[in-house]
Amino acid sequence: MNHHDLEHADPPFPELGEEVELFLETEAREGVLLYERDGELQKKPMAPWERGLKARVPVHASPFRYCFRLPQGYLGSHGLERTLPRYDRFFHLLAKPLPPEWALGAVFYQIFPDRFRQGRPELAPKEGAWLYGGRPIRKKAWHEPPGEDGAREFYGGDLFGVLEALPYLEALGVEALYLTPIFQSPSSHRYDTEDYHRVDPHLGGEEALRALYEALEARGMKLILDGVFNHVGATHPWFQKALEDPSSPERGMFTFYPDGSYASFWGVKHMPKLDYASALTQERFVFGKEAPVRYWMRLAHGWRLDVAHSIGEGGTNRKNARWLRALARAAKEEREDALVFGELSYDTVPTLRAHTLDGAMHYAGFAHPVMEWLSGRDLHGNPVELEAEDLWRALFDHYAALPLQLRHAMYTLLSSHDIPRALWRLRGDKERFKTAYLKTCTSRIPRINLHPLPRAAPDPGRGAPAG
Amino acid sequence: MNHHDLEHADPPFPELGEEVELFLETEAREGVLLYERDGELQKKPMAPWERGLKARVPVHASPFRYCFRLPQGYLGSHGLERTLPRYDRFFHLLAKPLPPEWALGAVFYQIFPDRFRQGRPELAPKEGAWLYGGRPIRKKAWHEPPGEDGAREFYGGDLFGVLEALPYLEALGVEALYLTPIFQSPSSHRYDTEDYHRVDPHLGGEEALRALYEALEARGMKLILDGVFNHVGATHPWFQKALEDPSSPERGMFTFYPDGSYASFWGVKHMPKLDYASALTQERFVFGKEAPVRYWMRLAHGWRLDVAHSIGEGGTNRKNARWLRALARAAKEEREDALVFGELSYDTVPTLRAHTLDGAMHYAGFAHPVMEWLSGRDLHGNPVELEAEDLWRALFDHYAALPLQLRHAMYTLLSSHDIPRALWRLRGDKERFKTAYLKTCTSRIPRINLHPLPRAAPDPGRGAPAG
Repeated sequence: MNHHDLEHADPPFPELGEEVELFLETEAREGVLLYERDGELQKKPMAPWERGLKARVPVHASPFRYCFRLPQGYLGSHGLERTLPRYDRFFHLLAKPLPPEWALGAVFYQIFPDRFRQGRPELAPKEGAWLYGGRPIRKKAWHEPPGEDGAREFYGGDLFGVLEALPYLEALGVEALYLTPIFQSPSSHRYDTEDYHRVDPHLGGEEALRALYEALEARGMKLILDGVFNHVGATHPWFQKALEDPSSPERGMFTFYPDGSYASFWGVKHMPKLDYASALTQERFVFGKEAPVRYWMRLAHGWRLDVAHSIGEGGTNRKNARWLRALARAAKEEREDALVFGELSYDTVPTLRAHTLDGAMHYAGFAHPVMEWLSGRDLHGNPVELEAEDLWRALFDHYAALPLQLRHAMYTLLSSHDIPRALWRLRGDKERFKTAYLKTCTSRIPRINLHPLPRAAPDPGRGAPAG
Repeated sequence: MNHHDLEHADPPFPELGEEVELFLETEAREGVLLYERDGELQKKPMAPWERGLKARVPVHASPFRYCFRLPQGYLGSHGLERTLPRYDRFFHLLAKPLPPEWALGAVFYQIFPDRFRQGRPELAPKEGAWLYGGRPIRKKAWHEPPGEDGAREFYGGDLFGVLEALPYLEALGVEALYLTPIFQSPSSHRYDTEDYHRVDPHLGGEEALRALYEALEARGMKLILDGVFNHVGATHPWFQKALEDPSSPERGMFTFYPDGSYASFWGVKHMPKLDYASALTQERFVFGKEAPVRYWMRLAHGWRLDVAHSIGEGGTNRKNARWLRALARAAKEEREDALVFGELSYDTVPTLRAHTLDGAMHYAGFAHPVMEWLSGRDLHGNPVELEAEDLWRALFDHYAALPLQLRHAMYTLLSSHDIPRALWRLRGDKERFKTAYLKTCTSRIPRINLHPLPRAAPDPGRGAPAG
C-alpha cells in the first residue's frame, strides 16, 4: 500500500524556495519524484527510507505539483495509475502563507449573534425603531417562532450573551467561534454592512467584542469574524455618496451601468457589489491600514470571507484569485496566525490550488454529498440515490484534490445559515443526524462543527438570512 | 446511454457571447443544464428534443464550463456521476478563435526537410562549409546512415524535393504537411534560427517555399511551419548584439544573469531563450507586422509552436497562456483559417482549456499511453504494464478533459523527431506498428499522422535533433 499525505512532507509548511523532504510509504524499493517546474516535468530519483522512499526538492512554486513513478505505476493524488496522471491528479503542495497550526482540526461553533443568547436585553432593537426594506423592523420575543419578516425580525441576542456562554461552549469541546456578521447593519443577519469600523451597538459594540475576545484568549479559544467584502449595504455612506454624486471618488468603488443601475450581490439591490479594480476599493478593503480585514485583527483571529467566489472586478469575479490572495495576505500581515477561509459555494479546488485562502466552507466536497447520502435528496429537494461507495468516492475525490496543507483546514460542516438545516433535511431523524456528525470525524478530516443556530428558522424558504 | 460531444453544440464554433444550443442524447425526459458564470453555478431547465434534451445558453466565457443534472445523476465530461463533479470534469466549450474547419481530422505528414527528398542537389551544403559547435559541418551521401555528428550532418534534402513528392503524398491521403524548421540556421535540424525572414537557401529559399505553397494550394492541401519562438539561435544577430553590447535594446530580449550567463532552451547555450516581458520581443515576435508568426502566413497555413509549454517571461514560462494566446491570435489576424498548435510535451489540458492554442502534439494523451501499451516500455525504456483497459482509461481521460472543439484538432501521433521512433520501440514488429496506427483512427480521434522521417536517426540517443 502506498501512502503520501501532509505528514510525509518535512517541513509540512515550507517557505517558498525552501527544501522539503517528501516521504512515500511504499513497498517499492525504487522510485522517481516527478515535479513540474516552469512547464517541464523534472525527475529526481528517490532514496531508500525505512518505510519506503524519500526525496529532497526545493518548493520553487506554490502550488508545487508532483507525483511518484514507481515500478508498478504512477502514484498521484488519487492513487496508483498505470500511465502518468493529468496534472489534476498530481499532489499539490503550497508554500507559506498557510493555515495557522491552531486551525488544523479545530472544532468550530457557528453563532448567529442575533439568535444565540441575550446578555443585555436593553441593547435589543425596539419594535419599529427603523425601517428595513421600507417597513418597520420587528422585535420578537426570545421564544417566539420566526415569522414571515425575515431579516426584519430581531430577537436581540448580543455578544455579551456569547460571552456568558463560553464555559458551556468550552465544555462542549469547542475551540473556535465563527460569528456571522457583527458590524453595524440595518438587518438582523447584518450582511448589508453600514459601518465596517463599528461593532453593532445592538450587539454590545466594541466593548462587547473586546470582552469576548479577551475571554476567548484567556481560554485559548479563537474567534473568526464574517468578512462581508464582496458587497456593502446600500445604506453604507460610501454607497450613498456614489449613488447621489456620480462625480464622487466613491462612484468608482461600485459598478454602475449606463441606465443608472449597479452590480449587486445576486441582484439584491440593497447589497451593492464592490469593484476591486477601483484603487479606492483596494485601499479601503485591502491595502489601507483601516481596511476592516486588517483593522479587526487586533480583536479576532481570522475571517470567513462571505461569497468569496464572487469577489472581483467590474461587477464580476474577474481576478478573483488575486483579490482573495490579497485579502488573506492583508489579514496575515496584521496577525501572523490569522485563519482566512472562504465561502466557496461550489468546487473549491481550483481556487484553493491557486494559493489564495486557507480553506473554505466544505460544501461541495463534504456537506452536499453527505447530506445527499443520508437524506436521499439534494440541496434543492431533488431526489438522489447515493450508495455508500458513491459517497466515499465523492469525499475522497475532493480530499485528494486539495493541496495537502488545506485538507485538514476545511470548514467541514453539514449545514449552515445558507442552506437547509441538516436535521430538517433528515426529517428529524436523530440517528441519521448523529451519523452525519460522525462523518465529520472520519474520512481523515477530523473537524467537528457544531452549529445548531438556536432560533434561526429551520426552513430557508421562510426567512433565513441571505449570506 | 447519455451522449454529448461537439456535434451536440450548435453552432459548434460560437463567437464569444453568442447563444449556443446544447443537445444531450439521453433517455431522461427531464434535466437541467448547470453552467458556471462569474464563479456561480447557474441553472437552466432543459427542453425535450427528439433524441433527448436541449437548452440554449449564451457562451459568456471561454472556456464555458457546464454539466447536466439528470434524474439519475450528473453528466459531466467523464460520464455519469452520482454527485456534482468537480469543475475538472465539467464539459469545456470554447468561443472563437478556434481551430479552422479544415484541420479537424486532417491527415498530416511530418517532414524533416534535410532528410526527406532532394530536389536540387546543387543547393546542399558543402562538406566543411561552416563550423557548427566549433567543428566543420558534414555533408552525408543520401543513402549513408546517420553518424555521430548529429545536427552537424547534412543530407541536403530541400523544399523542391518536397514539391516533387506532392503527387505521392496526395495519393497517400495526406491533407497537410508539417515541416520542421525551414528558416536559415547553422544546424541540420534548424531549431537554432539565424534569420526568421529568410527561408534557408540550402532548402531552396523563399522561391522554393512559394512554389511548394502554391502547389499545395492548387491541390487543396495545407502547409504548417515550425515556429521556433521560445528561443533563437546563438548566431542570430539580435542575440549577438545583446551579447556584445549590454546597452543595446536587444539585451532585454533575453534573460541575462549577473554572472553574464543567460537563460536558454534546456540549458543549451546555442539556443538563448526569448523573454516575452520585453517590449522588443513582443514587437518582433507577436505584435509587429514583421513578426514571423504573422509574416509567413502569406505562404503557409499555420504553425506548430516549438516548446510551447516553455514560452514566457523572465527566463521561465510565466504568463505562458497569455503569450500562447497572443501568438495564435497574431497568426489568425493575418490568416483567419490558420491552425496554431503547440508542442506541449506534458499534460496539455490546463493550457488548452485556457483558450490558448488550437491543439497540441498529442503525446501525454495519446502517443505515450499507446506506445506504452504496445511496447511494454515508457519513453525512457522503463518497463510498464498496461492492460487494454488502462490504455482506454488514459485515452478517454484526456479526450474527455479537452475542450470539445479541440478534441479532433489534436496532432495525434505515435512518435516524432523528439521521441524514439515507434517502429524502433516496437523492435520492428510491424503488426504492432499497424495496430498503433489503427489506434490513431479510433477512440473518436480520426487523425492519421504519417511521419516515417526518412533518414532521421532512429535512436535519439545518437544524434536526433533537439526540438
